[in-house]
This record gives sequence, C-alpha cells and structure tokens, in this order.
Amino acid sequence: MTDKKQLEALLKSVASGKTSVEEAALQLREIPYDDLGFAKTDLHRGMRQGIAEVIYGAGKTPEQILRIAENLHTHGQKSVLITRMSRESADLIGESGMEFTYDELSRVGIVGRIPEADGRGTIVIATGGTSDIPIAEEAAKTAEVFGNTVMRLYDVGVAGIHRLLNHQREIQSARVIIAIAGMEGALASVIGGLASCPVIAVPTSVGYGASFGGLSALLSMLNSCASGVSVVNIDNGFGAGYLASMINHMD
Amino acid sequence: MTDKKQLEALLKSVASGKTSVEEAALQLREIPYDDLGFAKTDLHRGMRQGIAEVIYGAGKTPEQILRIAENLHTHGQKSVLITRMSRESADLIGESGMEFTYDELSRVGIVGRIPEADGRGTIVIATGGTSDIPIAEEAAKTAEVFGNTVMRLYDVGVAGIHRLLNHQREIQSARVIIAIAGMEGALASVIGGLASCPVIAVPTSVGYGASFGGLSALLSMLNSCASGVSVVNIDNGFGAGYLASMINHMD
Amino acid sequence: MTDKKQLEALLKSVASGKTSVEEAALQLREIPYDDLGFAKTDLHRGMRQGIAEVIYGAGKTPEQILRIAENLHTHGQKSVLITRMSRESADLIGESGMEFTYDELSRVGIVGRIPEADGRGTIVIATGGTSDIPIAEEAAKTAEVFGNTVMRLYDVGVAGIHRLLNHQREIQSARVIIAIAGMEGALASVIGGLASCPVIAVPTSVGYGASFGGLSALLSMLNSCASGVSVVNIDNGFGAGYLASMINHMD
Amino acid sequence: MTDKKQLEALLKSVASGKTSVEEAALQLREIPYDDLGFAKTDLHRGMRQGIAEVIYGAGKTPEQILRIAENLHTHGQKSVLITRMSRESADLIGESGMEFTYDELSRVGIVGRIPEADGRGTIVIATGGTSDIPIAEEAAKTAEVFGNTVMRLYDVGVAGIHRLLNHQREIQSARVIIAIAGMEGALASVIGGLASCPVIAVPTSVGYGASFGGLSALLSMLNSCASGVSVVNIDNGFGAGYLASMINHMD
Amino acid sequence: MTDKKQLEALLKSVASGKTSVEEAALQLREIPYDDLGFAKTDLHRGMRQGIAEVIYGAGKTPEQILRIAENLHTHGQKSVLITRMSRESADLIGESGMEFTYDELSRVGIVGRIPEADGRGTIVIATGGTSDIPIAEEAAKTAEVFGNTVMRLYDVGVAGIHRLLNHQREIQSARVIIAIAGMEGALASVIGGLASCPVIAVPTSVGYGASFGGLSALLSMLNSCASGVSVVNIDNGFGAGYLASMINHMD
Amino acid sequence: MTDKKQLEALLKSVASGKTSVEEAALQLREIPYDDLGFAKTDLHRGMRQGIAEVIYGAGKTPEQILRIAENLHTHGQKSVLITRMSRESADLIGESGMEFTYDELSRVGIVGRIPEADGRGTIVIATGGTSDIPIAEEAAKTAEVFGNTVMRLYDVGVAGIHRLLNHQREIQSARVIIAIAGMEGALASVIGGLASCPVIAVPTSVGYGASFGGLSALLSMLNSCASGVSVVNIDNGFGAGYLASMINHMD
Amino acid sequence: MTDKKQLEALLKSVASGKTSVEEAALQLREIPYDDLGFAKTDLHRGMRQGIAEVIYGAGKTPEQILRIAENLHTHGQKSVLITRMSRESADLIGESGMEFTYDELSRVGIVGRIPEADGRGTIVIATGGTSDIPIAEEAAKTAEVFGNTVMRLYDVGVAGIHRLLNHQREIQSARVIIAIAGMEGALASVIGGLASCPVIAVPTSVGYGASFGGLSALLSMLNSCASGVSVVNIDNGFGAGYLASMINHMD
Amino acid sequence: MTDKKQLEALLKSVASGKTSVEEAALQLREIPYDDLGFAKTDLHRGMRQGIAEVIYGAGKTPEQILRIAENLHTHGQKSVLITRMSRESADLIGESGMEFTYDELSRVGIVGRIPEADGRGTIVIATGGTSDIPIAEEAAKTAEVFGNTVMRLYDVGVAGIHRLLNHQREIQSARVIIAIAGMEGALASVIGGLASCPVIAVPTSVGYGASFGGLSALLSMLNSCASGVSVVNIDNGFGAGYLASMINHMD
Repeated sequence: MTDKKQLEALLKSVASGKTSVEEAALQLREIPYDDLGFAKTDLHRGMRQGIAEVIYGAGKTPEQILRIAENLHTHGQKSVLITRMSRESADLIGESGMEFTYDELSRVGIVGRIPEADGRGTIVIATGGTSDIPIAEEAAKTAEVFGNTVMRLYDVGVAGIHRLLNHQREIQSARVIIAIAGMEGALASVIGGLASCPVIAVPTSVGYGASFGGLSALLSMLNSCASGVSVVNIDNGFGAGYLASMINHMD
Repeated sequence: MTDKKQLEALLKSVASGKTSVEEAALQLREIPYDDLGFAKTDLHRGMRQGIAEVIYGAGKTPEQILRIAENLHTHGQKSVLITRMSRESADLIGESGMEFTYDELSRVGIVGRIPEADGRGTIVIATGGTSDIPIAEEAAKTAEVFGNTVMRLYDVGVAGIHRLLNHQREIQSARVIIAIAGMEGALASVIGGLASCPVIAVPTSVGYGASFGGLSALLSMLNSCASGVSVVNIDNGFGAGYLASMINHMD
Repeated sequence: MTDKKQLEALLKSVASGKTSVEEAALQLREIPYDDLGFAKTDLHRGMRQGIAEVIYGAGKTPEQILRIAENLHTHGQKSVLITRMSRESADLIGESGMEFTYDELSRVGIVGRIPEADGRGTIVIATGGTSDIPIAEEAAKTAEVFGNTVMRLYDVGVAGIHRLLNHQREIQSARVIIAIAGMEGALASVIGGLASCPVIAVPTSVGYGASFGGLSALLSMLNSCASGVSVVNIDNGFGAGYLASMINHMD
Repeated sequence: MTDKKQLEALLKSVASGKTSVEEAALQLREIPYDDLGFAKTDLHRGMRQGIAEVIYGAGKTPEQILRIAENLHTHGQKSVLITRMSRESADLIGESGMEFTYDELSRVGIVGRIPEADGRGTIVIATGGTSDIPIAEEAAKTAEVFGNTVMRLYDVGVAGIHRLLNHQREIQSARVIIAIAGMEGALASVIGGLASCPVIAVPTSVGYGASFGGLSALLSMLNSCASGVSVVNIDNGFGAGYLASMINHMD
Repeated sequence: MTDKKQLEALLKSVASGKTSVEEAALQLREIPYDDLGFAKTDLHRGMRQGIAEVIYGAGKTPEQILRIAENLHTHGQKSVLITRMSRESADLIGESGMEFTYDELSRVGIVGRIPEADGRGTIVIATGGTSDIPIAEEAAKTAEVFGNTVMRLYDVGVAGIHRLLNHQREIQSARVIIAIAGMEGALASVIGGLASCPVIAVPTSVGYGASFGGLSALLSMLNSCASGVSVVNIDNGFGAGYLASMINHMD
Repeated sequence: MTDKKQLEALLKSVASGKTSVEEAALQLREIPYDDLGFAKTDLHRGMRQGIAEVIYGAGKTPEQILRIAENLHTHGQKSVLITRMSRESADLIGESGMEFTYDELSRVGIVGRIPEADGRGTIVIATGGTSDIPIAEEAAKTAEVFGNTVMRLYDVGVAGIHRLLNHQREIQSARVIIAIAGMEGALASVIGGLASCPVIAVPTSVGYGASFGGLSALLSMLNSCASGVSVVNIDNGFGAGYLASMINHMD
Repeated sequence: MTDKKQLEALLKSVASGKTSVEEAALQLREIPYDDLGFAKTDLHRGMRQGIAEVIYGAGKTPEQILRIAENLHTHGQKSVLITRMSRESADLIGESGMEFTYDELSRVGIVGRIPEADGRGTIVIATGGTSDIPIAEEAAKTAEVFGNTVMRLYDVGVAGIHRLLNHQREIQSARVIIAIAGMEGALASVIGGLASCPVIAVPTSVGYGASFGGLSALLSMLNSCASGVSVVNIDNGFGAGYLASMINHMD
Repeated sequence: MTDKKQLEALLKSVASGKTSVEEAALQLREIPYDDLGFAKTDLHRGMRQGIAEVIYGAGKTPEQILRIAENLHTHGQKSVLITRMSRESADLIGESGMEFTYDELSRVGIVGRIPEADGRGTIVIATGGTSDIPIAEEAAKTAEVFGNTVMRLYDVGVAGIHRLLNHQREIQSARVIIAIAGMEGALASVIGGLASCPVIAVPTSVGYGASFGGLSALLSMLNSCASGVSVVNIDNGFGAGYLASMINHMD
C-alpha cells in the first residue's frame, strides 16, 4: 500500500462491504517503512503525501539502489523514480527483470511506466541555456513520472530577451513554471515578472569563475525582485519537478 | 484599472453591451505604469498577475512612499500594502487622509481595508521561535491583504518536537504552509515531511554567531531533504505571503 | 597645469613663438604632485589621463578635504569633484569662499562649475529601483562634471520588463549605458542583450538578507551572459561615471 | 542576414532602387533566431549589436557545437568564434568540411577566417605572468576575429615593475587595454594609473591557496583605486576581447 | 608503557613490594614519544589521556603508517586504530604479520583486536541517510576499539520523522548519542530535543549544490536550538567516536 | 511539575502509598507546555531532559520575558535562567516581586536562587583573554544555576603558554573543561592535548579584521587536532555551560 | 624586572661582585606574571622576548587598562604601549599621575616616554592613501616606542605610480618596510618588487563594497607575486610595528 | 650579471683600475631582463634584491621551464630554484645536461649546486604534523639554496605540547622560525609566544571538512595573539624560505 488512491479505494471497498474490516485492518497493519539496515524505505509516503517514495541515487551503491527499488516495487509502488543514477547502477537494474528506462543526460532512471498525465494544467520548464538542459530534464522527467504535462522552453536566457518574449503566451497560460538558469540566473526574475502563476527557480552550477558553482545564480534568484518566485537547491531539478507536480495537482 | 477582476468585469460589460467598445478602449488605453520620476508604479500588475502593486518601503523616503500610495489609490487600487515601513513613514501616511493601519512589530502598513478572504483553503504560518514573529506577521498580513485565511502556529521549533506534533492536524489540512525559522532552520524539513501541501520556507536572521545573519537557516532550508519545500530570501515574509496567496487562489 | 588642454595650448603657444621656451620650461618644471603630508595631490592627472584629480571623501577629515580642494583649485583645476562627502565637510567647504554645490542624496560636492557637455553622445543611466538612485546620481554628476550629457531611466527593473522595453529606443541610441541595480542585479544582463554599446554595470548594496551587502548583484553582473558588460565595485557610481565619460570622449 | 553591414548594404540597395521593397522585406522577414531544440541561435545579433553570434563551447556536446556552427554558417555568418572548446569538439568540426582553425592553449576555435582589422586603434593585452597566457589568447583571438589589431605584452607583472614601465609608450598609445592577472591582480591598478584609455581587467584563476580560484584577483580588481578600470568574470578572456572590440569600433 | 591501566598496575606492584623502585623507575624513564623523523609517536597518550595513540592515515605514505603502527605495537599498545586509510596502505599492513582488519567503506583499519566493551552505557549512532553511513562506521569502529557498545540507527532523517520517533526509547536510554547528517543537518536538533544525554553532532559532506561540502549541515548543527548538542568537524566520525567513548567511560 | 526529581518523588510517594494514584494522575495530566501565544513554555523539559526550561532573552520584549518567567515560576520551577538579557528587561523583572539577580557583564539574569552544587566534579572554565570573560561568565552562571562547582582560569591564552602550563593540575583534575577564546582560538587544542576529560570549545567574536566575527576561532576549534574537543556556536556560553553540567551530572 | 637589559645588568653585577647571589636570587624569584583576576600580566616578556608587555585596549574597561598599566609600571617597565584605546580610557589614565600621551587618530596611548632609537636602520612606513594613516600611525608609534627610527611615506598608492617611484631611494635603503593599504592592496606587491628588505604588509579595512572589510586587500597581499612579503591581520598596525622593530634590532 | 656580489666585485675592480670604465659599462649595459615571449626573465633581480631569479613551475610547460632555466644559467646564475615542478618537467631538465637535482615530495628542482651556508644563524622549520612535510621541505630547500643552515622540527603540533616544549632551546636560539601547520594552525601562536625572533607562519591545506583548503589555518595564523608572527599564502613554503633567508642574511 504505497499510494493515496489505493488507500481511498480500500476504504471505499470497506464502506461498500466488498472488503471486510478484518481484511482491511490486515492490509493497513503493514508497518510504515521497511528497514533494510542501510535504508528505511518510506512505504506510506504515497499515502501521507500523495506522491510515492523516490530514490536519490547519489552516494548509494548499485546494489543498495537495486534492493530499495525492488522493495518498493514489491510493496506495490507502480513507478519508482531514481535520480542522480550512475550508468553502472542503471545497468544493474536493467538486468533485474523489472521494466526500466534510463536517460543518461539527466541521469534519471524509472522503474515501471510513466503514468497518464492527470495534473490540472501544464508545467512550463524554461532554461537560460543549452548547458542547463540536464537539470531541466531531471525536472521534466520527475514531473512526468508524477502525472504532469510538461512544455519545454530551452535556451531562452535573458541576454536575447526576444527569445523569451516570443513565448509570452506559453508563460502566461502555464499553471506552474520552472525557471532554470546558471551564471547570473536572471531568467527567474524576468519570467516572474511576466507570469501570473508560481515560479520555481532552479539555480544551476553552469558557469565558471565567479559563478562559484551556482552560488551566483542562487543568490540572484533568492533576491529576485519579482514576486511569486521561490527557490530550490542548486541543480535540484527533482525538487522543482516534485513541487511543481504538487501544485499542479491541487484542486 | 489595477485589478484582474475589474478587467474581467469590463470585458463582460462590453460583451453584454452595457459598455461601448469605445469607452472600454478608453479605459484600457491607460498606460501601464505611471512615471513619478523616482519610481514607475505598475498599474497593470493586478491585471497581469492578479495581485495588485505593493510598496517596498525600505530605501524610500516617507514622501516617496506617500506619493506612490496616493498614485495607486487614485488609480483605483483598493488596498495598498506597504512593507518594511518606518514609523516616520507611517506617521506621514496616517496624516494623509487615506484609511490606514500600521503594525509596528512587522513594519507593515495597509492603505485601505483588508478584504474578505476568498482563497480556497487555509494558509498555516509556523515559526520556530518567538523572535521570528515579526517576519511571520509580515507574511500573515500580506496573505490577509490578498484575501486569505491565516492560521498562526508560533514557537513550535524542532527542539521540542512535541509542540509541533501536537499540531499535525492543522499541518495536514493546510493548503499551503509557510515555515519560518532562524538559527538552524530545521522547522521547514520537519514540516515538509509531515505535510502534503507546498511548504514555503522563510529563513530569518534570528540568531547569533555562526547563524551569519540568516545564512545558516537559508542553507539548511535549501538543502532540505523533504520534498515540496522551496525557499525565499532571508526575512522575506512578504514574498512568502504573496506566493502562498497565489497558490491558495489557484482553481 | 592640471589639464591636457592646457598642456596642448602651451605647446602650441611655444610652437607659434608666443611663449618662450624658458617660460614653458618653467611652467612644466612644476612637480607632478603636491605633498600635503597626509596626501599627495596628483596635479598632472589631467595631463596624463585627460581627466582631472578627484577627491574621495570617505575617511578624510573636513579639513583634509578642504586643503586638497584648495590645493587643486590653486593649481588651476576648474572643477573639483568630491565624492562620498559628509554634510559636515560640505558645510566647511561651503564657507571657504570657493564656488560650491552639494547634493545630499548622492553625497557629491562640486567645487567650481559643471562644464558644457563635450562628449560625443549620450550616457544613459538606468536603475532597477528607487533605492538605487543615490548611486545613480553619483554616476550622473560625475559624468556631468566631466562634460557629458546624461539621460536618466530610473526604476526600470526587470520584474516589470515592459517598463524597460518601453525605453528600447533610448537604450539603442546611447553611446554608453550605466546599469545600476541591487538585489538580483539582472538589469545589466537584460540591457546588455538589448544594447549595442558598452554597458557598465554597478551592483548596489540595496537589498536585504541574501543580497549580502551587494554580493548577490555583484556576482550576477560578473556572470552576465550578455556580452559587452563589465562591472565596477558595489555602489561605485563614481567609477562608472568616470569610465563612461572616458568612453564617451573617445574620438 | 547576420551582420550590421549586410543590413546597411541591403537598405542602401533598396534606397538606390537596386533591390525591390518586396525582395528586401522577404530577406528581413527571416525570423530572428533558429530553434534547434537544445539551442536558439541568435541570427540577428550581428544586426542588433554589430557583432555576430558566438558559441560558448563549455557544457555543449561536440554534436551540438557542430550543429550550431553549421546553422550560423548557413545563415551567412562569415566567421564563427567558438570558445572553451574541447579537443574532441575541434576534431569533429575539423572533419566537417568547413574552414576551421583551433588553438589548443586557449581552446578557441574559429570557423571561417579572421577578417581584416577595421578597428580604430590598437588593443593592448597585458598579462601578469606566463600562466595567464591561455586567457590572454582567448581575449586576443576574440578581438582579432572581430576585426582588431592586438599588441601582446605578456609577463609584465608588478613584482618587477620595470618590465611594465618599459612599455609605457604602448600603454599610453593604446585605445583599449586588457589587463589580465591572477594571484593579487595588481596589474590592473598599475596600468589603470598609467593609461588614459579604458582598462578592462580580467582576473584569472592562476594561483593557489588564498587565491581561492581567482577570488583574490577579482576582489583586487573590483577595488582598484585607479579610475577607468572595469572588470569581467574570472578567466573571461572572451568577454574582455568582445568589449574591447566594441569600444575600439566606436566612431 | 602506553596505557593508564599499565601505569596503575605498576604503581600498585611497587606499593606491594613486588616491583622494586629501581625497576619501576627504569620502566618509567622511557621517553614519552618516539621520534621517527617524519613523526613523533605519542607513547604516553594512553597514560595521559586514558586512550591510546591513533594514526590519522590521510597524507601519510603506506610506509609511514606501517612504521608508526609497528612502533606503537612494539611499545605494547594492544590495538591501534588507523583512520582514513587507503586500500594500498591496508594491503601493506596486511602483509606485515600483525593482526589486522580493514573496513573499506569507512576506510578504518585496526591492528590488534577490538577489546571487550567496558563503557558504562550504550552509544547510539544515528544517521540522516544511507550516504552518511561511511562516516557513521568510522565513529562506530572508533567507539568499539575503545571499548564501547554501539547501537546503530541508520537512515532516520527528519523528512520522515516517524522513522526517528519509532526509536524514542533507544534515544532516551542512550548514554551518549552521535547524530550524523549531511544536507540540512536537522537530525541533531530533533534528537537533541528528545534526548537527555549529550549529543555529538557530525555534519557530513553528503549533499550537493548549496550544501557546499558540508557547510550547510555544519552551520545548522552549530546553530541548533536544542541544548546539549556540540559539534565536531565535517566528516569527523573519529572525533565523535573518541569523545563519545570518553564520556561513556566517565565514572 | 517541571523537574525530574519532583517526578521521581511523586512516583516514590505513589509506590509507598502516600499519594493516591488518582492524585498522581491529576498532577501528571498537566499539559506539557503552556501556550502564551507568542511562546510555548516547555514545562516538562525538566522531566524529559533533567534540566529546566531556560529563557533566551534576545529578540524578546521585556514583557514577554516577564510573562514567560512568571509562567515557569508559577509552575514550580525553582530557578529560571535568562540569557542575553537587556538592562531594560532586568529592571522590569526586578520590579516584579520575584527573587532576582542580574549580572550586567554577562547579561545573565536568574529568577530564584542558585542551588547547591550537586555535580560530580569541577567544571574548569578557561579563557584566552580578558575580553572573553563576558562569555565565560555566561557559561559559569549557567553551570552554577544547574548545580555545578566552577573553577575560573581567565586570560591563559597560548601566546604566553607558561600561564596555562602553570595550571596543569587544575586541567588534569577537571571533569569537564570549557575552553573559551576568540582570535585564533588555539586554546582549545592546547587544553585538549593536556586534558583527559571532554573539552567544550566556545569560539568568541573577540578580535578584529580577519577574525570575521568569530569565524577564525570557530574554524580553528572545529579543526582541532586534539581529540576529545567539540564545539558550540560562537559566543554560546550558555550552550557550553548547559552541556558541561549535563556531563558533570552523569552517573 | 621586565627587561632583557635589566637582566643582563643584574647578571653582570653579580659577576662583578657588586650584587650578592642572594640578592640576585631574590630579584629573580619574582613570579613571571601577576594575576589580576581578569588578566595575567606578563612581567617576563621583556626578558623572554626582548620587548616589553603591551596592552591591547579593545574589550577592556578603562579601569582594567588602568590597573594593568599601573601593575606594569610598578614592576619597572619604563614605557607601556596601549593600543586601540578609547578616549574615555585615555582620560582615566591621564588623571592617574603617570606620565602619559595619547594620539586620538591612531588611538594609541603611551605611559612613560618614547626611548631613544637604538634600532640598526630605518623603518619605512608607506600607505596607499590618506584613509590608511590611522593604522600607519599605530605602526609608527609602536615602532618608536620600541626604539626605532621611522620614515613615513603616506598616500603613495599604485594608481599614481610615479608618487611611489619618486621614493625609490628611501625604499631601497630601508631596513624593513611596512606597506599599508586597503582597497586592492597592490602597494605591497609593487614595494616588494622594488625593495631588497623584508616587507610587512598590512591590509586595512579602508574601502567599501567588494573590499568586504579588508578581505580584498588581505587576499591581495597574501597572493603577492613579489617575494619577501609577509602579512599581518587587517588593520593590525601594532603587529607590523612590533615585528619590524624585532627585525630592525637583530644583530 | 645576476648577482649582487658580482656587481660589487665589478665596481671594486673598476675602482682598483683592473677593469676599465668602458668594459664595466659594457657589462652593465646588458638589459635587465630577457624577453622570451612567454616570459621576461629578471636578470637583475640578484643585483636589485640580492637573491637570484626563481622559477615558479606551476602553469608552465616543461619546455618553458627548460628555456627559462637555460636562459638564467647562460647569464651566469649559479643555482636556479624551480618550485612546484612536475615529474615530467624534472625529467626534461634532467636530460638537458645541466647539473640538476629533484625532490619529488616537495616538487622542488635545483639546477646547479646548493651553495655553502652564509647566513648569520639557523632557520628552524617546524611542522604541526607529518602531512605538512612537503611544504616544509619546499621552505627548507629554498632556504638552503639561498645559503642558510636549516634545522627541521617535524610533527610537533600543539595537541601534544610536550613534543614542542622539548625543543624550547632550538626555538629560543633560532634566528628565524618558519611554523608550518594545517588544520587549526595553532602552532604559530604557541611558537610565537616562546620565541624572541621573527616567526613566519605558513598555513597548509592539510585537513578536511571545515579546514576549507587551508582557510582555517590561515585565519588562525592571521589572528595570532602572539606578536612577531606574520603570514604567507597557504602552502607557500617557498615564500617563507625566501623571506627567512632575507632576514637571516641581514647584517
């Protein structure tokens, strides 16, 4: 039981008499997480937060990732998102027999299938440059795996503002926008000024010298004079995609 | 014309024949901002972004604030929020004849009235400690002036986690949560783990020594291991209140 | 002899026989700076760099400023610019009998008169917000005292990009642009993308929290993805005005 | 149509009747950028800013660089500058059939030829040490590809000031100077004090320990007590060469 | 003589007449450290501080580590802890004939055996995530080699607070707790609020972007609003294990 | 009921039949904290952690401090420690009728009396210089109010190492040592090398220039090459005193 | 007995029979420091290091300074240097009856007289600007009170390099040079390149914006490409003067 | 002519009539540096500063190093020090036929021979730990190549203060001391308090976590409360050795 919908279905089934109270109690008695020793998988997250458990691949061995993925899969989670996944880990999971796709650019792996989009609107993902695309794809794939329609606007940085202004319509009709940029990170402010929906800013570590590994874009975005802009960690495409999905699924 | 609703009313009025096209055109021909020399008031913001223009009081003289407020007021903006306002500026506006209230703690002034709440749910505003309340009130008043119901949970920092856990119900039924904390800023992560709605984290400059003016809480919040958390600038209660209102008004 | 033009005039005068070689030698024998003990006034700067000596007022006592100003004045410098000047210093110079004006906002004092503009084009000075105006005025007055025509575009920050786009003509016809902004400092990049002339970016300390006293705007501007943009120190209106004048006087 | 001169030629041709208005309109109707998916090439930059589009090679795959270069080439841009280009990318372009040169030291590639110099004066490029030469060459090649005469003064750092003073003539007759140094970055201030033209300072990441990747030189240059000095990002040879060219082509 | 207990035994033996004063003096005359040229091994540390000398493996060659280990071994130290030890160094010691075990994950090597636990209570070692385990194991093995019982609670980070709350009993019955976390480091504060024993916080370099190599967790822990929490260096599992052992052995 | 001892007394009283179960239940039913709106006083802390609630005075108004102190006093807490208390707040409490003492140097106020020392040993508090004494007194008074014997060793900084070495006996017989120093903070390492008990290092903001508000001492202490040293926040005398007391009361 | 010379005199006197061994022993039995509670005055420093004890005035009350000064005076120290002394402290000492002079600019107070210079050469003290003079005077007075001849070269910053080059003779004949500068701190490198004696660099907090309180000058000086340059803390005129004196008195 | 002694010899030879004025002029007419294009070798440094030109190997190709070394050798410099030299560069020079030695640990190469020591006293070089030895050897070899006697005290860090105190005699009889330490860098302060000669502190990048690449030790040393201590760049063994030699050769 890893999913809010499963929970609601079970409760309805009890209400309608299809499932006995004892049976339901049994299913619900399942402990909320599994202790694998090196990790405690959060099996109730889908129920508690409406979005299923995700595996952050960095700092985990291929074997650890495999075991967590299998554990979640076994407990009924239909699709498992794995971020910051190495080629090596992807190969191991690829051989596990589970349905699996891997995108080398964004280092995102997905066990199971991307579901039908059921969000209320479109999530626009814009990048300042070409080099920000790996982070953008992490955000995009995260949003897609959680059931969202994504529109990509890549390489629309502010130094050629007409590239961005040509897309005012998309910006104004989005339900959430993810603005991704390195270097000076001005994209978030300009989009924030044009849009009437929440803008999630993702600073990237793209740049050199005084970009100080993304610090420049981060500070820029935190100091945005546009309202409606909030910020996630440097290179945190996943976090932006997750939050965008959350907002896009609000009713 | 400073308001999305006014715009829609006008267009409906034209559609129904009550207002002539010429008259509507005249009203719409109004330039989108007024140039006061030292400032260009954004009169279309309400139309463009659905939320009216706000005055950031820091670095402006009392006279400048008064002139901008009068300018917005004259163009029909019903309530004007003024943040980071000095006592001196408040006194000047207080004598201007416009309806006006001022809260010294949060340094927020409001010209006109706080409207009826028309947001879809409740915005929960939680603080780690007592010293974070001025920032929390800036957020709360901002949210209220934009039509939101606010629930305050003050002094629920993680060092006495039971204070927070006692409020799980409020946290789980909120539509948006603003988590405000200085020092180690852990509140955002813990709330982020408990909630299923977006959490807007506001680091504050409360603390001393290695809090480095809020840097500690800022970094903490940016690195939150909880999903669904995004961050605004240190002490930016306004930005959090504004974004929360935006999310709370999504349909 | 504090001025390139004076030098040229003298040499022509010698060439034409109006001034004897001995007399010219005498005038030129003057040592290149005066040693006041606490300061060595650079009397040849006008000759060497084409722009006369300026007094940086911070960290100097009113008496020191007065003595340097009188020294320069005595050696024939027609107008003496004094930056970061306290009210107290201004009062002392005001009583000295020298022609003197003082602008409290920008803390700029000028001994003598602002000359006729003899630059080749217009210097556009744009600010992101109202609070940046003191720095902008330091730049503007510096440019004016060195003989330039200045056009001021204040409060055209990127969060309301239409305010800036409405001034594309001015931006495209400028000979040099000074872009001044605090907070996220994105103005420089956007202007840099629109303009075909050099853009001098001035980060300001306007902002709070993660603006870290101007660091945010500084890094932003240094990382500008627009070409043709260079940066001076935080709040260095003088430096920008000086460099703009230098470029505007190139033939 | 990627070039200001082409634009002027076209307009003159229309004025003289050689080209029909319809034909000109057709040529001008061309959209201002090409969308390659991962990049939007700015085809009007030459027209808008007088300097053609450049490819920043870092963070782009060899294939992406090749496709952008071909796209620009096809649209008539005579020479395409590619900075921060890997050996691997250079090899790929080298096999593309386009005329191409590559300098391993500065990692600069040039598709097409370096044009005749048409700038008004000489750009002097000075470095503090031998290790700064790769950045200097990036600046030099950028300036040359945009039509400038460059004079190189390498290894003239301030610790042996006579090496620099021996070149006072070159410094005083330059139209623009690019001062490049790592470590303590004092070169910019000393040159700034000797020169009467704009000095563009480029801090480099040359050094160790408390040079903190170029931070030391950067701060040094930003705080230069010499007037007429502005700064670009650490190791940004391209930006300095571009700006120098812009100033050198002002009339 | 490398051990406090050996010293006490000797003195008792003298008191009881079993050992002559001359013989004792001889044994005690041994100099307090051995000078190997590149290192001075502290042979009296066990006597002075009650805990024997440890080898910090980073920055030492395999040969140096071997020689120090042999030197300590020869002087009677029963178990020698070696931290931050490379595989290569481990291989060399493994071939030396001394009893030796090596843990690749934590890079800890131990010459001799782990003694019986003689501490007064249990040391609980908790980590925020799976990636913190290498540091946790360094702490755990250090504590074990100095005679402590260790309980491991891994992957109990605050984003899923129920995982931690399920272990309240262990937390409340511990004698010392080591809280290890990267990213936002909130674990230390939450545990600090639940526990009534000293909490030693170890920030780790786990994370990316604005974690700045552990700075985020470090500042977070230093600013903990919970009392009874103190902090050691980033990734310093050894230091935490050592201090915990010291406290656990107090009588 | 704010105290572990009170709890044990109650339970014993129940066991012995002196108190009825109903009466005990009534006393224990008391909610664990009081909600004053602006603060939630932690009334069970004494029971949960063995040390009673403390008031952090910074950022609280005199009235808020008074109300919290009265609340704790009313619930039976015998002595209430108030840190970082302003003269103004002290005056207000002084007039409240509660027994109260205030030390201006350390800004520590105590409602009620300092109890008899019941810790197991002596806490030595050493400072590097005279300017560190205010922080040392905050630590000392905190330790005393929680029942500890304190020995003060002031102005024993490492630049005159004989001043410290003269106190080796005190250092070696302490149960816990608090080492307080600004500037280079070396005191903690030297004491750490001499002592065989836990050393709590407190960096102070004493110093100027590159001490960067205590950062220098903080980093120094975190990097201590001596084992057994842990660190609290800059100027956090309270935290050190609290932790020292906790260790000194372990049995 | 606070002075190396006194010690030598005593020993000679014993050798010659003028002083009995008993009498000498009595004089030498004096303990090496006096414990005033808040401070331990180092009475043997003059003997141990050849330079007498100095009072660092910052963070000490006027009464503390007075008591330390009297203590040193009473033990025979002929002149007592007090740095960073407030006007208020100076007034108190002025009334004490001890011979005393105070310089407000450098905040240096001297009890007793400045002795005859007995150093081997001249100490040159150069500053970049007028605002650096207070620090320079702290260095100068320190050097003078320890018996050195000082030559002041003020306002010779590198932006007008001829001002410095005019003093090459002084620079080349100095025995030690103290180079003091804020902003970009380039003075140290240029002097380091010209001089053949040790150069002690003192960064100052003079400047604004990206000077970050002296950080810019500090990094600049640490990264000096000139050899023979070492650095003391920001604004540490005393430290430079002390070290210069030490070098100037080497035989 | 690369040497002060050669110069003096020449002048004496002229004075005595052995060398004609014409011949001397010819020798002296030699330009002060050679321009190799990528480097300008400073051939007069030995004359100007008394210490010959050194090659900083980092960032130079083996070929460049070889050419500079040969150039200096050809102009008569007897020994050429090359620092931060790669194995590859060493191999190339090794094959050049010039007399050459290379130390892999410190990456120091020496063309020619180490001369007889002619300094006035002994330079003591102390390190905190074993890992600091490479930097210490750079300092030691630099000092030796410039004619100094060096005494090495390695691994005498403050955590075991008796190791250092055992060497008080060496410390008190040194003419200059170089104190080298990473981590908390306290060694410089403790030695500074014991010694009566100048102490040159070298922070090293040895450490991890909050040592931030040597920043911790650097700040520690800059804030040393001991007088007579100055600091060079992180890991700058050469700079310390050079300065120590300069002081040791003062007469």
